[in-house]
Amino acid sequence: MKELKERILREGKNLGNGILKVDGFINHQVDPTLMDACGRELARRFKDVGATKVLTAEISGIAPALMTAMHLGLPVVYARKHKPITMPDQVYLTLAPSHTKGRTVELIISPEYLAGGERVLIIDDFLASGATILGLVRLAEAAGAVVVGIGTLIEKAFEGGREALKPLGVPVESLACITRMEGNEILFAD
Amino acid sequence: MKELKERILREGKNLGNGILKVDGFINHQVDPTLMDACGRELARRFKDVGATKVLTAEISGIAPALMTAMHLGLPVVYARKHKPITMPDQVYLTLAPSHTKGRTVELIISPEYLAGGERVLIIDDFLASGATILGLVRLAEAAGAVVVGIGTLIEKAFEGGREALKPLGVPVESLACITRMEGNEILFAD
Repeated sequence: MKELKERILREGKNLGNGILKVDGFINHQVDPTLMDACGRELARRFKDVGATKVLTAEISGIAPALMTAMHLGLPVVYARKHKPITMPDQVYLTLAPSHTKGRTVELIISPEYLAGGERVLIIDDFLASGATILGLVRLAEAAGAVVVGIGTLIEKAFEGGREALKPLGVPVESLACITRMEGNEILFAD
Repeated sequence: MKELKERILREGKNLGNGILKVDGFINHQVDPTLMDACGRELARRFKDVGATKVLTAEISGIAPALMTAMHLGLPVVYARKHKPITMPDQVYLTLAPSHTKGRTVELIISPEYLAGGERVLIIDDFLASGATILGLVRLAEAAGAVVVGIGTLIEKAFEGGREALKPLGVPVESLACITRMEGNEILFAD
């Protein structure tokens, strides 16, 4: 998506070790107009997969997932990293290693909001190693739901996430696919 | 706001100790259509305060703040509770006691995204004791910004937040003001 790629080129910063700083418009400060456009585009790409629910992980997945869900007219569930007191004792929980955090995080969903037979579209801000997304896939499967698509804003193609998701056999879409980051240079797939 | 109050009456659950469970449409599963309507209404109420930025706290403030910011055409910043590696070493940080978590949490903002002279509209899901919002006010003041308004989805009037915010002298708006919760009964101010 042209608008997102241009913004990454203009404001994104390669911090080294595969870390792309986009916290001026995606994951600390958010540009709602850009996020709305990204949500609309992801909704367009997944309009025919028959999704019944959008699933993401807190924190930075919330904004793109909310906008995508709005344009699809679907509810969105965000997996929590800490169990709040409003959640029942029996939950779906999985562990996912976080590259940017350097540790393992919990992903927790209440069975109240993910039921067997649901068709789940997973949306997140980044597709890097795919570890967080595979955690969401495990939660969906634990609930007896089916994953029907995976969409992200930014893919870091050099971290192998797309290969890790391939066995799922579902469409994987990213709005900006980065093939290389070297110094100040950020290269996209097309 | 009629739509929100009806939803609270239909799906909200009083868990006791002042805890209202609304995680089926606000803070675990989110109804994007309702959230969009709430954001539009908050934007309408604050259209004349001259805000330049919307400020909230992760996690459950993100959805209402994003929608409000979208309708105002403003960027939104969410204070982080853990400093990510993409943030500079020098940050604005304050501590806020969390009633629902039973402990103190950190609220952190990068100086890159909150500058002196900005006019800040604070949006959050709940106004309870006001502790989180007062934490955001301290961050804004540390940055030399001015708070021009405070808006929330749900106010729990019996927890005193409105009185705590009164000395700020700014408009405080909530879309559903709960005066009493007893057993299965939830009462609104009007």
